Amino acid sequence: MSSIFSFFFLLIITTFIAASQNYVLEKFGNDTTELIRYITKGDGAGLAYQWLSTLVDGFGHRMVGSDSLEEAIDFLAKSLEEDDFDDVHTEEVPNLPNWVREDDNVEIIEPRHQRLNVLALGGCEPANITGEVVVIRDLDDSKFINVSGKIVVTAQQFKGYPQTVKYRQSVKLFESLGAIGVLIKSVTSFSINSPHTGSGAEGARIPAASLTIEQADMIDRMFQNGEKIVIRMNMKSHSENHTTTSRNLIFQITGEKFPSEVVLLSAHLDSWDVGQGAMDDGGGCAAVWSALYSLKQLAKKNAAFKPKRTIRGIFWTSEEQGFLGAKHYYNTHKNDTNETFYFVSETDTGAFRPVNWFSHLSFSGDQQHMKRLDEIVHLLNRNGILLGLMNNPSQGDVRFWAKDGIPSVNYIPDKAIDYYFYFHHTGGDYITIFKDGDLEYTASIFAVLGHIIANMDNWGPT
Amino acid sequence: MSSIFSFFFLLIITTFIAASQNYVLEKFGNDTTELIRYITKGDGAGLAYQWLSTLVDGFGHRMVGSDSLEEAIDFLAKSLEEDDFDDVHTEEVPNLPNWVREDDNVEIIEPRHQRLNVLALGGCEPANITGEVVVIRDLDDSKFINVSGKIVVTAQQFKGYPQTVKYRQSVKLFESLGAIGVLIKSVTSFSINSPHTGSGAEGARIPAASLTIEQADMIDRMFQNGEKIVIRMNMKSHSENHTTTSRNLIFQITGEKFPSEVVLLSAHLDSWDVGQGAMDDGGGCAAVWSALYSLKQLAKKNAAFKPKRTIRGIFWTSEEQGFLGAKHYYNTHKNDTNETFYFVSETDTGAFRPVNWFSHLSFSGDQQHMKRLDEIVHLLNRNGILLGLMNNPSQGDVRFWAKDGIPSVNYIPDKAIDYYFYFHHTGGDYITIFKDGDLEYTASIFAVLGHIIANMDNWGPT
Repeated sequence: MSSIFSFFFLLIITTFIAASQNYVLEKFGNDTTELIRYITKGDGAGLAYQWLSTLVDGFGHRMVGSDSLEEAIDFLAKSLEEDDFDDVHTEEVPNLPNWVREDDNVEIIEPRHQRLNVLALGGCEPANITGEVVVIRDLDDSKFINVSGKIVVTAQQFKGYPQTVKYRQSVKLFESLGAIGVLIKSVTSFSINSPHTGSGAEGARIPAASLTIEQADMIDRMFQNGEKIVIRMNMKSHSENHTTTSRNLIFQITGEKFPSEVVLLSAHLDSWDVGQGAMDDGGGCAAVWSALYSLKQLAKKNAAFKPKRTIRGIFWTSEEQGFLGAKHYYNTHKNDTNETFYFVSETDTGAFRPVNWFSHLSFSGDQQHMKRLDEIVHLLNRNGILLGLMNNPSQGDVRFWAKDGIPSVNYIPDKAIDYYFYFHHTGGDYITIFKDGDLEYTASIFAVLGHIIANMDNWGPT
Repeated sequence: MSSIFSFFFLLIITTFIAASQNYVLEKFGNDTTELIRYITKGDGAGLAYQWLSTLVDGFGHRMVGSDSLEEAIDFLAKSLEEDDFDDVHTEEVPNLPNWVREDDNVEIIEPRHQRLNVLALGGCEPANITGEVVVIRDLDDSKFINVSGKIVVTAQQFKGYPQTVKYRQSVKLFESLGAIGVLIKSVTSFSINSPHTGSGAEGARIPAASLTIEQADMIDRMFQNGEKIVIRMNMKSHSENHTTTSRNLIFQITGEKFPSEVVLLSAHLDSWDVGQGAMDDGGGCAAVWSALYSLKQLAKKNAAFKPKRTIRGIFWTSEEQGFLGAKHYYNTHKNDTNETFYFVSETDTGAFRPVNWFSHLSFSGDQQHMKRLDEIVHLLNRNGILLGLMNNPSQGDVRFWAKDGIPSVNYIPDKAIDYYFYFHHTGGDYITIFKDGDLEYTASIFAVLGHIIANMDNWGPT
């Protein structure tokens, strides 16, 4: 996920109850309760976890360029066919970065030898350099501190991900100032010897890796004490000579009445090449799958769950390289005249059960649609789901549609503020992170959004 | 640290206020307030952190047999001399295990390849084996599940350290049942890709290592699904051909009136060979040092802080191999007739500030001394330090004296129940774990204990 909370504390939870509340409540109140009960307590409970476990235990992490990603896409396409979804297919996304991690070795040479626990940043190319360390605690200081010929170690405070990720993205800045290598303190508030990878070294000619916060802070203390610190970076990770191709995976429940009006639920299937990619963003895919699957199952007994509009699920590829799968899909389809997106959404900050009022839907769109969404959120609240609604232009993979004015929602659970980043892009991104109810409640939110928006009369033109 | 909480929930906090409360309060009330203020808010604040940082950043982890441990002992002996403590000296501890970690490689071969994140257990010897996995969730099941010729992966629940560490100590059990290798799910409730080492493979002829909880649980899920799992363990860690020697480090403030009556504050200086050994147990050493150092500084201006009895600090070696440093000291000195231990204590479950009433002094001894300690605890409580007092025979390094009936105390902060074990024996055991006040409040507890017991009239015979 990318910068999401930018205006977090500037915005207020919208609490107005629309005059038309009665319509949503009266028309969808019972459906909503039935849907949430089915997913969280009924036959749907546990299915998303099982689905995710099959994916992540069976294939492991799913880096763009890896066999495991393409094998997982093949497996899921078959599985979605077996679920009897409509129009299951993949669409190729060409010309993707093809970067491969190797056995990188970074060690302190002076004042005493210690191998450091690092993860190369995406795009880092082979290098074998030795240099003296200069510590940068604040990017503003890079104007005053001479980094020329040095290895920069950053030792910034964690001030939330959106305010701190710029350090991981400062490799080319330090290169332009003459640095010969960069070690970024991992972008997190908490660590158990956990380096965090991520994009950041693409296009740089100097090597760059992330350090654990423990080791970055140790080097900072030594540096502030006036010790001379010498580090060797022997990096073997590299980009392949050729780009790679991956695929977006699309499936849907075609609308009974307005099949060309599309309600989109999405998450990304690719991951970094450490851990299992279970939290980022396998869990999002599991929630999207569970939302659509649950609607399909309920529709077998209750025709009210057959949507008037089309509810589409998409598992994007290559989110981690900069939303490249979603961007390609948008560009390929933006001039399609046979269908219209009525609503787009994604979940990519952890499919956690909301447990307090920091949880919210981050919304981009006009006031009319925000009003409709507020009615739906109110209905979720009535069913015990803690959730607010906030304006925020950051929409991750669905940003391309949001920029066109399509109503767009990004689910931000309370755990996305801090806890999510304990595991983000680490070897610890395993399904173990999810506890009872996490996937179910996330799926419930999207199932309810999909069901109501695909069936409501007064959503309004988009 | 070892099993400490064994009777935790069976015991009750003693809350009686002794009739003699007035004596402790009247005689030591002002001293106690002055001492705590000096350490937490006065000139003493920050010194323990600085001391610990110099130790752990300067020398890194301090495994028995390593140069870094012996260099750290030399450095601290010199530093304690410079602090002007009395009788600073080291005492050799011979015939210690001499085990060295190498680059061990454990990987899943089937159903798909994945390198696992492991730490060999102490005593593990070289081996290169490949075998099918059998998962043991509960030690009781090992009676019914055939492990012969297999690699055992444990997937136990974490039920607190004292109830769960037996899994790490079950290598020889599984060997006796015919297992060819053992992978123990790390003994913790929380992990970010964090394997935990520890003793466990000493004397076993089969290889043994710890797995992260994430990967152990993944293998468990695969196993429960009926998948055939094959693992290769290529272990190179080994014991050297010769044993090694290390040293306990002793320093004191000699008593003005009863120098042969000794009040002991202790912690262990050795660590496992991962992380910095900052929490286990560098922080304990820093707290003991700060307690004695603060009393020395205050005594320069206020003679009340010159102790009547001797307050001795000892930094044990080789705790991690089974309290071997303390045991050797005990055996060497148990027949000494020139001095008597009046009170012994240790801190080895994290030098954390107590923040709720789970924090307590774990006490072994008779009712009379427990009554005196309760008065001191009450005085600490009056100064805002949350602390209880409980009977518990588990006394870590000072168990040898406790078994002889010497009043003994082991400090258990609330964070020792769970949080401590996030980092215990991992690469994440860095000074970063300690926050403002942690070392200061731990030092305050021991400074007050040392000061009052070394000066009170009615401690009673031991």
